[in-house]
Amino acid sequence: MNKNFNRRQFYPIKSIFKIDFLKKLLESNLIYSNFSDNIIIEDISSLSVIRPHSFIFLEDIITNREFDDNVHVITNLSQNKNYFTNISIVKNLSEAYNKILNTLFYHDDQSDFPDEYIYSNGSHISKYSKVHSSSEIGINSVISRGVEIGENCIIKNNVVIKNSILGNNVIISDNSSIGTSGFGFDFNKRGSLYLNPQIGTVIIDDNVHIGSSCTIDRARIDCTFVGKNSMIDNMVHIAHNVIIGKNACIAAQTGISGSVVIGDNVTIGGQVGFAGHINIGENVVVAAKSGVTKNLNDNSIVAGFPAIDIKEWKKNIIKQRKHGH
Amino acid sequence: MNKNFNRRQFYPIKSIFKIDFLKKLLESNLIYSNFSDNIIIEDISSLSVIRPHSFIFLEDIITNREFDDNVHVITNLSQNKNYFTNISIVKNLSEAYNKILNTLFYHDDQSDFPDEYIYSNGSHISKYSKVHSSSEIGINSVISRGVEIGENCIIKNNVVIKNSILGNNVIISDNSSIGTSGFGFDFNKRGSLYLNPQIGTVIIDDNVHIGSSCTIDRARIDCTFVGKNSMIDNMVHIAHNVIIGKNACIAAQTGISGSVVIGDNVTIGGQVGFAGHINIGENVVVAAKSGVTKNLNDNSIVAGFPAIDIKEWKKNIIKQRKHGH
Amino acid sequence: MNKNFNRRQFYPIKSIFKIDFLKKLLESNLIYSNFSDNIIIEDISSLSVIRPHSFIFLEDIITNREFDDNVHVITNLSQNKNYFTNISIVKNLSEAYNKILNTLFYHDDQSDFPDEYIYSNGSHISKYSKVHSSSEIGINSVISRGVEIGENCIIKNNVVIKNSILGNNVIISDNSSIGTSGFGFDFNKRGSLYLNPQIGTVIIDDNVHIGSSCTIDRARIDCTFVGKNSMIDNMVHIAHNVIIGKNACIAAQTGISGSVVIGDNVTIGGQVGFAGHINIGENVVVAAKSGVTKNLNDNSIVAGFPAIDIKEWKKNIIKQRKHGH
Repeated sequence: MNKNFNRRQFYPIKSIFKIDFLKKLLESNLIYSNFSDNIIIEDISSLSVIRPHSFIFLEDIITNREFDDNVHVITNLSQNKNYFTNISIVKNLSEAYNKILNTLFYHDDQSDFPDEYIYSNGSHISKYSKVHSSSEIGINSVISRGVEIGENCIIKNNVVIKNSILGNNVIISDNSSIGTSGFGFDFNKRGSLYLNPQIGTVIIDDNVHIGSSCTIDRARIDCTFVGKNSMIDNMVHIAHNVIIGKNACIAAQTGISGSVVIGDNVTIGGQVGFAGHINIGENVVVAAKSGVTKNLNDNSIVAGFPAIDIKEWKKNIIKQRKHGH
Repeated sequence: MNKNFNRRQFYPIKSIFKIDFLKKLLESNLIYSNFSDNIIIEDISSLSVIRPHSFIFLEDIITNREFDDNVHVITNLSQNKNYFTNISIVKNLSEAYNKILNTLFYHDDQSDFPDEYIYSNGSHISKYSKVHSSSEIGINSVISRGVEIGENCIIKNNVVIKNSILGNNVIISDNSSIGTSGFGFDFNKRGSLYLNPQIGTVIIDDNVHIGSSCTIDRARIDCTFVGKNSMIDNMVHIAHNVIIGKNACIAAQTGISGSVVIGDNVTIGGQVGFAGHINIGENVVVAAKSGVTKNLNDNSIVAGFPAIDIKEWKKNIIKQRKHGH
Repeated sequence: MNKNFNRRQFYPIKSIFKIDFLKKLLESNLIYSNFSDNIIIEDISSLSVIRPHSFIFLEDIITNREFDDNVHVITNLSQNKNYFTNISIVKNLSEAYNKILNTLFYHDDQSDFPDEYIYSNGSHISKYSKVHSSSEIGINSVISRGVEIGENCIIKNNVVIKNSILGNNVIISDNSSIGTSGFGFDFNKRGSLYLNPQIGTVIIDDNVHIGSSCTIDRARIDCTFVGKNSMIDNMVHIAHNVIIGKNACIAAQTGISGSVVIGDNVTIGGQVGFAGHINIGENVVVAAKSGVTKNLNDNSIVAGFPAIDIKEWKKNIIKQRKHGH
């Protein structure tokens, strides 16, 4: 499966948003705005995926990219004016992001999400979801609007699935939560009133097995992804924007922080933690209880906290123990 | 919100308990009992909160406190007779505690809890709870007797809330359990037959955001408290009697043991553990995967296990690695 | 309670399996097969528990055992022919195991499990389960086929129980998952299409207290066992085939990997991890956040990762800190 999706599958347009509405919406937070045409905005882009008729929020100076005319840049860095003509400059980018996204999109940290459920065999399944007839939903599960579940999947009991697309033969065990909003907010502005809206998805590829009491958070804008044939044990937490390759094996109680990218064929022990925004190569092995804080090359085998080459880690352990006697 | 609550909000009096009933109830466990008046006991006090018409159980010699006549001390330390006149001495305090509390109070490790639910939009909501009309309860959630939910809250799906008071704008994500009984028992007398009844509450202040699959246990006697604007990530465990200040940020899979007190504005990484009964100051930062075993002063920044100043921790790591080569 | 159970309590025979059917089922994976009588196979054995009319899969050369005529050995090691006459040799043992078990047994990673629920007081309880009338099931819980619940148990809300036998006075708190299939697959053949069927049970002895959001996986063939009077805190993960003795105390967020055997009277702190297939003696104490990687003798007190004697661990910590200054 690829990582694209149509946001309209999950919810309708909340309000038609013409670009000139920005001024009214952002008020004194807006310093400067330039646009040639009063285009309609219906979506949001990231630097990874540019979507038509969208906003893109830039918190860095981006010098090497060019967007279509129907993509409007919003940034707090006026230097970006040198690189983009279709642009608005704001004082507080996070405030602008929150206000615009709450106006444009429904999401599940707001109470007005438009959904309607059918109660069937003990579970609630949205009228607006697509569950293939060969797939089976257990009891007390909730399948929300827009969710798509492929062939021969087994969703067990008390599972919640929102904002997610599942391939074929996916198994999700009891009490797991897939596609809920992740931990997205400004460190300096805490509390539910200042959440950064999370409006991305979770995509789970074919033949993935997910254990009990797992949480896989929806991406902020794009998708959180679990690759084909991956095996996820119980109580694994996968944060927003994480991308996991094919054939991953992740043991119980491991946590993967936001925006980590993991290659194919990794084997990860239990109770491992990954710091956010790092890249893990292919065929990497991470011993149980490790804390991975940096990028790891293909074929690395690491252990410890901070995680290092497992041979070094073992040597260190032996040395420490000698010193201890 | 303050930390007071009325226990009768959650359940009625189980049986009228006059102080002279102690002798019959405790039998040979009671060594000595003195009371001027045959008062009625309806509640329980802790050294933090003295309540009228209550028992207070003392496992230390308390020399500097004075209680009203309607507060009856129960202790296994006969020296306390020197400081209190309205007092009973028992051989085994924990046994007395369990017997008295099981007689006085309903709690959810007993099967006779008097509740009655209304099924509404997929969730079960107690007839004896108060949910503000602006708040939204998802599907397959359970809101038990006495629970109070303020304005504009969002309780998502498969959430269980008991014995709890929530302020305004509180968000609780899928599969979380709020207000269940914690890990309270004598280390020397294990098993469900010897549980120490947990009859306190959970109080969650305004604008708190709680992730998926979290557990926040009710206090033993008083309240477990999460302060205003706090952000709690997924799979965070908060044990009984924990007090967390305002604006906390606590990342995924962190566990906070019983009776920890945490100041305002803390930032706590993922997979952190806190030992029980310690005090954490304001503005403290705890790096991911730390194990905090001691009190921390305001503005501490710590890492490692046992957690120490993060600069020391980094130095140690570098030294160990040098030794390792 | 003992560790025996009747697999037919949980599901009927899926198909009558005569031994000569093996040839057709395994096709080219079967190298050699010898049996005197065309017996019917209805069950599966392990080296721990031999059951009549069963297959037993051997991945080692076993020289010192003798089985009844109605127990048929399947192995990938042709040397086993020297020790067993009633035997089949296959090329790929795991493939044979999966194919045979999926043919013989229903299990909950397949969609055809035959069950039928009655909705009662908010929970779904299988027509084919036995819940003692003195026990209480909360709301949104699921009690599946064959489950047996003894006297005076309290199953709280949103709990899932499958493939399990519970004694008397067992308490299971909100959002826990008991008896789901564990993390069983070949490391070299990942994905839901190659799962090793898990068809064992969970047995929970009298007076056990299990917290919120715990997961206890069913055994692969025999049982996962939690001994009498054990106290299990929140978010504890107990993997398949784990055996825990009496009076265990296991604090929150601890994880116990597959096939660990733990003696009586252990005390285990929070966030501890146990590597798979190790033996832990009686009266062992494991400090919080430890990672136990090796067998532990009776009365051991350990800490750290890899866990060592707690006194050594403390000495090491002090030395490291000195070096750090």
